[in-house]
Amino acid sequence: MTPLAWDRYGKARIRLVKVERGSDADAAHDVIDLTIDVQLEGAFGAVFDGDNSACLATDTMKNTVYAMARGRRIEHAETFAIALADHFAAQPAVSKVQITSSEPEWSPIAVGGHGHPHAFIQSNAEQRTSVVTRDGSATTVISGIANLVVLKTTDSAFSGFPRDRFTTLAETEDRILATSITAAWTYRRDATEFAARSRIRTALLETFATHHSRSVQHTLKAMGDAALAVCADALDITLTMPNRHHLLVDLTPFGLDNPNEIFVATDQPYGLIEARIVR
Amino acid sequence: MTPLAWDRYGKARIRLVKVERGSDADAAHDVIDLTIDVQLEGAFGAVFDGDNSACLATDTMKNTVYAMARGRRIEHAETFAIALADHFAAQPAVSKVQITSSEPEWSPIAVGGHGHPHAFIQSNAEQRTSVVTRDGSATTVISGIANLVVLKTTDSAFSGFPRDRFTTLAETEDRILATSITAAWTYRRDATEFAARSRIRTALLETFATHHSRSVQHTLKAMGDAALAVCADALDITLTMPNRHHLLVDLTPFGLDNPNEIFVATDQPYGLIEARIVR
Amino acid sequence: MTPLAWDRYGKARIRLVKVERGSDADAAHDVIDLTIDVQLEGAFGAVFDGDNSACLATDTMKNTVYAMARGRRIEHAETFAIALADHFAAQPAVSKVQITSSEPEWSPIAVGGHGHPHAFIQSNAEQRTSVVTRDGSATTVISGIANLVVLKTTDSAFSGFPRDRFTTLAETEDRILATSITAAWTYRRDATEFAARSRIRTALLETFATHHSRSVQHTLKAMGDAALAVCADALDITLTMPNRHHLLVDLTPFGLDNPNEIFVATDQPYGLIEARIVR
Amino acid sequence: MTPLAWDRYGKARIRLVKVERGSDADAAHDVIDLTIDVQLEGAFGAVFDGDNSACLATDTMKNTVYAMARGRRIEHAETFAIALADHFAAQPAVSKVQITSSEPEWSPIAVGGHGHPHAFIQSNAEQRTSVVTRDGSATTVISGIANLVVLKTTDSAFSGFPRDRFTTLAETEDRILATSITAAWTYRRDATEFAARSRIRTALLETFATHHSRSVQHTLKAMGDAALAVCADALDITLTMPNRHHLLVDLTPFGLDNPNEIFVATDQPYGLIEARIVR
Repeated sequence: MTPLAWDRYGKARIRLVKVERGSDADAAHDVIDLTIDVQLEGAFGAVFDGDNSACLATDTMKNTVYAMARGRRIEHAETFAIALADHFAAQPAVSKVQITSSEPEWSPIAVGGHGHPHAFIQSNAEQRTSVVTRDGSATTVISGIANLVVLKTTDSAFSGFPRDRFTTLAETEDRILATSITAAWTYRRDATEFAARSRIRTALLETFATHHSRSVQHTLKAMGDAALAVCADALDITLTMPNRHHLLVDLTPFGLDNPNEIFVATDQPYGLIEARIVR
Repeated sequence: MTPLAWDRYGKARIRLVKVERGSDADAAHDVIDLTIDVQLEGAFGAVFDGDNSACLATDTMKNTVYAMARGRRIEHAETFAIALADHFAAQPAVSKVQITSSEPEWSPIAVGGHGHPHAFIQSNAEQRTSVVTRDGSATTVISGIANLVVLKTTDSAFSGFPRDRFTTLAETEDRILATSITAAWTYRRDATEFAARSRIRTALLETFATHHSRSVQHTLKAMGDAALAVCADALDITLTMPNRHHLLVDLTPFGLDNPNEIFVATDQPYGLIEARIVR
Repeated sequence: MTPLAWDRYGKARIRLVKVERGSDADAAHDVIDLTIDVQLEGAFGAVFDGDNSACLATDTMKNTVYAMARGRRIEHAETFAIALADHFAAQPAVSKVQITSSEPEWSPIAVGGHGHPHAFIQSNAEQRTSVVTRDGSATTVISGIANLVVLKTTDSAFSGFPRDRFTTLAETEDRILATSITAAWTYRRDATEFAARSRIRTALLETFATHHSRSVQHTLKAMGDAALAVCADALDITLTMPNRHHLLVDLTPFGLDNPNEIFVATDQPYGLIEARIVR
Repeated sequence: MTPLAWDRYGKARIRLVKVERGSDADAAHDVIDLTIDVQLEGAFGAVFDGDNSACLATDTMKNTVYAMARGRRIEHAETFAIALADHFAAQPAVSKVQITSSEPEWSPIAVGGHGHPHAFIQSNAEQRTSVVTRDGSATTVISGIANLVVLKTTDSAFSGFPRDRFTTLAETEDRILATSITAAWTYRRDATEFAARSRIRTALLETFATHHSRSVQHTLKAMGDAALAVCADALDITLTMPNRHHLLVDLTPFGLDNPNEIFVATDQPYGLIEARIVR
């Protein structure tokens, strides 16, 4: 028999929608829409030999998420995830819990210039993410944003790179820069001001817009610096930025020039730039 | 040899990004981001026997899209699609042309409260669609919206439906109603005011929000009526509305009630409601 | 109020897995794995005005699929779909029923050279499809295959096509031909030998393999002819064949030739060739 | 300015298709179809400050993959990935290279009982994967399989698990077990017999089929043990097995029993079981 070097199990993609209705009938509703993964590590070796006596069913994990959401105010996904992590950490055999969540934004539908109190539109494609890890008694909260799709039509260059025998790319001082930003920042222990997410999002977007980019890396670093500057509770930020290439179309066969006007957007291959910046 | 009863060919998913920069250096840029399909019908029977003399290459269709976009103002996808349809209709053998397009919305990134002139965010997940068909000398324009995801937390009932031996669904006067709206409306011949899209979108959303829904069908009809009311050029509207079920979770095993608070969002199966409403 | 020109509703993506176990304990099991859509048309106009008295709940449709599968031998998806269509056609208000199904293939896992009696592998990515339509008392059965992905490395040419000012594609006598075949054939009324699917699949594949292709259209036609030749019950066949372009990479910048050896496979844009062939 | 704690960049989803044709005209062709990611780490800090002098363009990485594939026999993805890793490791600034690949299987189309020499079918949905890492002068090869979808209709139980106040799941001695296997094993240094992949795949499948399962964990461990037993070069194996739940449908409202015959297959939520087993 061979030994287990590492193992983990849990329930993935638990879909929880909670409607918070306020105290009076006219109050605006709030929609909490979370997709949650629960993952446990611990003394589960016997399970792999067929003994389920320590194996909390993943179905029970799902039930727990729904039951614990009932009657509990969920101001931030992070605080609910911390409560779940505390619950599962107290189970027998468990040494480490990880609660992952993903959340789209539902905004009130505008009716006659005002937000409707109980009708919502999924207003953008991005997701608010979090990963809460409880390892023994230490809890770590990482919050993030995924699928924030942006593009700038100028103020982006890529030149001065090395040329070897396989290099054909032309240098350019003016190209389209397009990416889908994934960001994740780690809060210092005991931070509670999870509304910082909004400031970080604004810092990332404003910096992307105004930065004179020499490369994706160059802009990524400026964005990460700006994010850390607006949130003293963030210890680090990891940014993942695919370079969604927009290639200038060669129109010369048709007797036409192309002064940075007509592009083909490509899905693959794509550049992939990743970095973690610490305070 | 068996006869051809119908045939069509073309190029699908031509990705065109055009940057319109305005006349002076400070002018705000505009991003046109179209995914275009070109489809031709006509006297192409010989191609199926191996004679390519009438077979305009689909690669040529792609080149044509890029070349015709150069230097041409694209105010609406519809007007560019009409120009493409006219071009291909004039090719030998062609009797019918269909140009399909899909377009996400790029909005200026807000910096210090103002829209940035050349940095953009893909502000939501919906797509603006169009299908332009030129059949002989007659051109039909259908415009639409896809993936408009909405939810209301109340003002939605479903009761009074028939019960047979396979019916278990409880009647409800208060449920979540969630859907991803796909809409497509046909313009009267020679209509040119394609900015009507915005009014139709508002009418669909406001009606979804404020309608006292007896069923998805009931709300769909009200939305279609409202859309036709705000656009005299629209002859009809087709709405496709999947019913994205949010099921109330049974919390009684845990000693808890659930007064329309905790739901599980399900992907499948889903109800699917479709109708075309004419003026 | 505007009139309804057309409407339809139903339940989509009902996931049914049935295990048929045979009469004795050692018998090999059979797995039926169907994704079913039920769609109804009829006198449902009042539903759109908020009167649900004729609106069979889509939840009831789902229940019906599961209940009718119990104890009923499902030799072919088509025969089960016909039974479902007959059931729903007998409901009040219903004038037309469409039952759509999609089915992956589960093959016994080979253990020591023999198929295991109750362990299965989803042996390929293709789906077996069917659309059964009952309109009044007339039932039409269309069967098909989707996502049959094939490629040939030679015996495929594309030349002799017209050249206009937007044509840059080079003629070629030897290229890669790759596609994902979607096929759908209509059975003559009262046909019952739905196992013909296997012969049609073989005819499509063998013809794709051995045909000296002058174009996708040319090969599509030969494949359709071959399919109709092996199934006298098939009245027509519709084939949809995207041209998944494999572009020869230009290696001359690196001092290398490329005698049809190194290709880049592209997802988009792609050619799209469709035809219906009748007997 | 904040420091970089970690960074990496490269090109993702380079699509390479190579046709190996053999020496004489009648020889069977071989199709190599790889999707490759190249990722570099090293002294790239200045790039993040806008100095591109050390930033090998990701476009050059793509060109390198195509050029190095020309004229080079690719027996296994692993050997080609090692060659790529060696090439990039020799570039200035680079300290670590990771080459990831994914490869579907193309099998000859059977024509008259024989495999056709140059026509192929993508015979199943699974992917062969590899991750080759060169860190300084040490090279690690991890090979794997992804998306191997299997199901067993009996010989699977789940009982004896703990019950707390949130547990509702019934114990069962006979359920469907279905999963999509992802496996990845690490070869000992200098291993070259990458054809071991086939033996490991067989061991995984045969063990899945014949194991009397007490849980997904129990079967996962048996599969991992079997895989290591047939490949002395494998130091460890990591298995990821989502539990694709098939829920018994309650037919009692319809007056029917359901002796493990009718199931609803669910996509989400799903159990997720992961473990790494070492020799």
